[in-house]
Amino acid sequence: MLTPLVRAIAVAAPPPTIGDNTGDIDRLKKALAPKLNGSMPLVPYQRLSKVAKRFRAAGFTGAAIVNELAGGPVLVDFLPQLPPVLVGMALDLGTTHLEATLLDLTTGATLARADRENGQIRYGADILTRIHYAGKGDGLAELHQAIIGSVNELAGELARSGGLAQTEIRALSVSGNTSMVHFFLNINPHHLCREPYIPMVNAPDPCLAGELKLAIHPAAVVWLLPSVGSYFGGDLISGLLASGLDQQAETCMLIDVGTNAEVIVGNREWLIACAGAAGPALEGGVARMGMRAGPGAIEHVQIDPVSGDIRYQTIGNGKAKGLCGSGLIDLVAELYLTRQIDIRGKFRPQAAGERLIEGKEGRQFVVVAGKDSADGRPVVLGQVDLDALMRSKAAMYAILTTLANQVGVAFADLHRIYVAGAFGRHISPRQAVVLGMLPDLPLAIYEPVGNSSLRGAQLILLESQARERSLQLAGKITYIELNVNQEFMLRFSGSRFIPHTDHALFPSVPFFAGE
Amino acid sequence: MLTPLVRAIAVAAPPPTIGDNTGDIDRLKKALAPKLNGSMPLVPYQRLSKVAKRFRAAGFTGAAIVNELAGGPVLVDFLPQLPPVLVGMALDLGTTHLEATLLDLTTGATLARADRENGQIRYGADILTRIHYAGKGDGLAELHQAIIGSVNELAGELARSGGLAQTEIRALSVSGNTSMVHFFLNINPHHLCREPYIPMVNAPDPCLAGELKLAIHPAAVVWLLPSVGSYFGGDLISGLLASGLDQQAETCMLIDVGTNAEVIVGNREWLIACAGAAGPALEGGVARMGMRAGPGAIEHVQIDPVSGDIRYQTIGNGKAKGLCGSGLIDLVAELYLTRQIDIRGKFRPQAAGERLIEGKEGRQFVVVAGKDSADGRPVVLGQVDLDALMRSKAAMYAILTTLANQVGVAFADLHRIYVAGAFGRHISPRQAVVLGMLPDLPLAIYEPVGNSSLRGAQLILLESQARERSLQLAGKITYIELNVNQEFMLRFSGSRFIPHTDHALFPSVPFFAGE
Repeated sequence: MLTPLVRAIAVAAPPPTIGDNTGDIDRLKKALAPKLNGSMPLVPYQRLSKVAKRFRAAGFTGAAIVNELAGGPVLVDFLPQLPPVLVGMALDLGTTHLEATLLDLTTGATLARADRENGQIRYGADILTRIHYAGKGDGLAELHQAIIGSVNELAGELARSGGLAQTEIRALSVSGNTSMVHFFLNINPHHLCREPYIPMVNAPDPCLAGELKLAIHPAAVVWLLPSVGSYFGGDLISGLLASGLDQQAETCMLIDVGTNAEVIVGNREWLIACAGAAGPALEGGVARMGMRAGPGAIEHVQIDPVSGDIRYQTIGNGKAKGLCGSGLIDLVAELYLTRQIDIRGKFRPQAAGERLIEGKEGRQFVVVAGKDSADGRPVVLGQVDLDALMRSKAAMYAILTTLANQVGVAFADLHRIYVAGAFGRHISPRQAVVLGMLPDLPLAIYEPVGNSSLRGAQLILLESQARERSLQLAGKITYIELNVNQEFMLRFSGSRFIPHTDHALFPSVPFFAGE
Repeated sequence: MLTPLVRAIAVAAPPPTIGDNTGDIDRLKKALAPKLNGSMPLVPYQRLSKVAKRFRAAGFTGAAIVNELAGGPVLVDFLPQLPPVLVGMALDLGTTHLEATLLDLTTGATLARADRENGQIRYGADILTRIHYAGKGDGLAELHQAIIGSVNELAGELARSGGLAQTEIRALSVSGNTSMVHFFLNINPHHLCREPYIPMVNAPDPCLAGELKLAIHPAAVVWLLPSVGSYFGGDLISGLLASGLDQQAETCMLIDVGTNAEVIVGNREWLIACAGAAGPALEGGVARMGMRAGPGAIEHVQIDPVSGDIRYQTIGNGKAKGLCGSGLIDLVAELYLTRQIDIRGKFRPQAAGERLIEGKEGRQFVVVAGKDSADGRPVVLGQVDLDALMRSKAAMYAILTTLANQVGVAFADLHRIYVAGAFGRHISPRQAVVLGMLPDLPLAIYEPVGNSSLRGAQLILLESQARERSLQLAGKITYIELNVNQEFMLRFSGSRFIPHTDHALFPSVPFFAGE
């Protein structure tokens, strides 16, 4: 039984007579109350006249559209009959990319799916640059308009592919990091990146789409997943909702990898989280040949240890366009295992042979020759990209070990490790272990949960229990600030080798010493 | 202990630190909740950024401004310290006049009082004309702007006389008839005057002043007293609040006289109401020499039965400008008792003597000669005005008797009769009995309650119990439609004499038969 964020409720009110002359809106509320557990819905002033007119025009019988909010039901529209689909949009509001689905809120069925680059990219690839831009002149308004514009384009694309009008979208759930939520709401992000790193709001109350000039139904409720802090956003709360970590009896870990690496460890009793900059290497679309997991992205790579032949698999099985996060990790792990890179992550020309070429930006390893690629340009991995990945993987492992140490949990005690993020969708945990990015544990412990930010937003649309749970979770998580942690910096340095300076931590990984 | 509609609550939140990095708004909500019985206040999107900025600028210590709504507290502003006064405006939104007070919501003290003509008068003196006008082109918008303009001017006048800025007004309660509330809210009044007489809404949910472009604080809560039906408005609910009829053990009656006569009979167990057109004669400012009860209005009249000398009293004791409702009733009753008018309400020239002159519009009785009046023009009572009063008083009595008969209550069983309206402020019940407008009962039964519409609006500002009571009352009142009642028409015809065709109904009034 779904308990969606917006409902269409069949109503047949008795028509007014001289003996029953209550007002139109009061009549509708009275007819609705028994279907809302006796609650009288509120009608916001800006919807009052529209609802009354449509109720009367429909002959006092039809379907009421009710937003289900924590403070009580809010009546926002009236239709002559129950709509064939009641559409909600779930949005993963990423720094680099937006990804969204349209759901039918009465059945939970997916009606459409689409993604799109975040239009704020032109103001800066990373969040810090954008926060600084927001502080200048109309910067914040520009960034706000850019993200609203992107969301509107995405809504348009989704509606077209679902054969719907954009105004049929009657609810929007938004899962994003704290900064993106500030830009989305047009509220000042100034203090997010300045000690002591304070958001203007962690848990904004829902608003209506019209207030944000979103090009969906103006009375659509906009529900934002709450943040825990500046560096721990609603996208992570989504991760908890989607993985169910917070409901486990045994201690588990959730790792969400993007430009920031965010980690939660805990169980149904307690939750401790931290976040740290992992660098852009793992975020598709930032590395030179990197791309988002989508058609043409290489997502898996194998290298024959004898012949050196490279076998790869692209999403959609078409010609290769680039490498997504999981393809990048596979490739580098295989390069290490075939000794074409050393433990510092540097190319070994004597082993890599003719696939290694000298480009303008230094050495590049040709993964796919131009003649075999989608656009005629070779798919390459540069030393520059490799160096960035080494920093990212080192940061990732340093974050995991710092958190585990501070919490007093050994990796071996973890019941399960959920791996989330675009990074995690098709990742091979084994290859991440080879690189020393994830701890050397039995592979069955790892459970990829895909884009859990989007999945959490979908749950918000469909289940009242998920909405309540998200608000409780935001108050329950203890957040550790890693950016100011000395221990983290020491662990980071120790992690900048494959798999690690302390080889005993990775007994299953071949170690090629002394090269 | 007052429980006002808006509160200023002192808050001292701990400043953010690296170990306590919750968001600004979340911090403020958390600090407020213990002072709101544990409720977490909502923050509307349009106030989010402003509240957060002011909270931070004030050093996380100061006063939160919270609107107390039925659905829960709503946080709308933050000040560096508790304001010296927290100002609310109570408004009687009359068809002809607006009357309002500013109250200090922390003490209940009255800060200012003012009244003003309803700016919609230029579109028609009576409501029906305005409802028809609203149906043409931009008529509704014009009428809406006219009333909002008048309210804004009144707010300005009140603020000036209270030495305040208009934006210091942080709450507005509105008590008006159903049509005026529709115009105020800019919602279509079309069906109000068409059978079966259905309002678009009886009990609108509160909104913010900014939504109505009111020139008070944009986040001021606007709270409208609920209506029962098209002809029974929130002004009558105010009458119940102010009189306390609904809390009496014994059966009482409330009579509110204006252009419409509205009557409620009942006690704490049941309430039955009706309304009927009484005509404009009793509404100050409509009759030719009539005026609102204000400085210069004749409010009491005596005629010496021997000399025929007229003694009168004006409000403020200055020179006479015209007659308010109570003065008019006094005058006509005295004219009857001194036999200068007959039982049909026609002047008797042989008795009225030289005070009776022939004007362009027929006979006129000179109450005050031009040389003694405020503006040099005589204060007169024309036969035309007298005829209108006769119709009004007949309608009034017909309404009272029809209701009493339908309810099965004899006038003699009434414990108390509250007389409200501008009509009732200074009325002499005895003279109204002489005219046959009110039933012939011991005078101690009558209790004038003055402008109970305004008093009810004041209670709404100050007491949560009054707000709850008003909403319960609106659902508890049984309304009888008199305009379609045959019995009423018969009783109306019988009442068009002084005091009545059936003299036995008025044993205390001299009856001059056969003239």
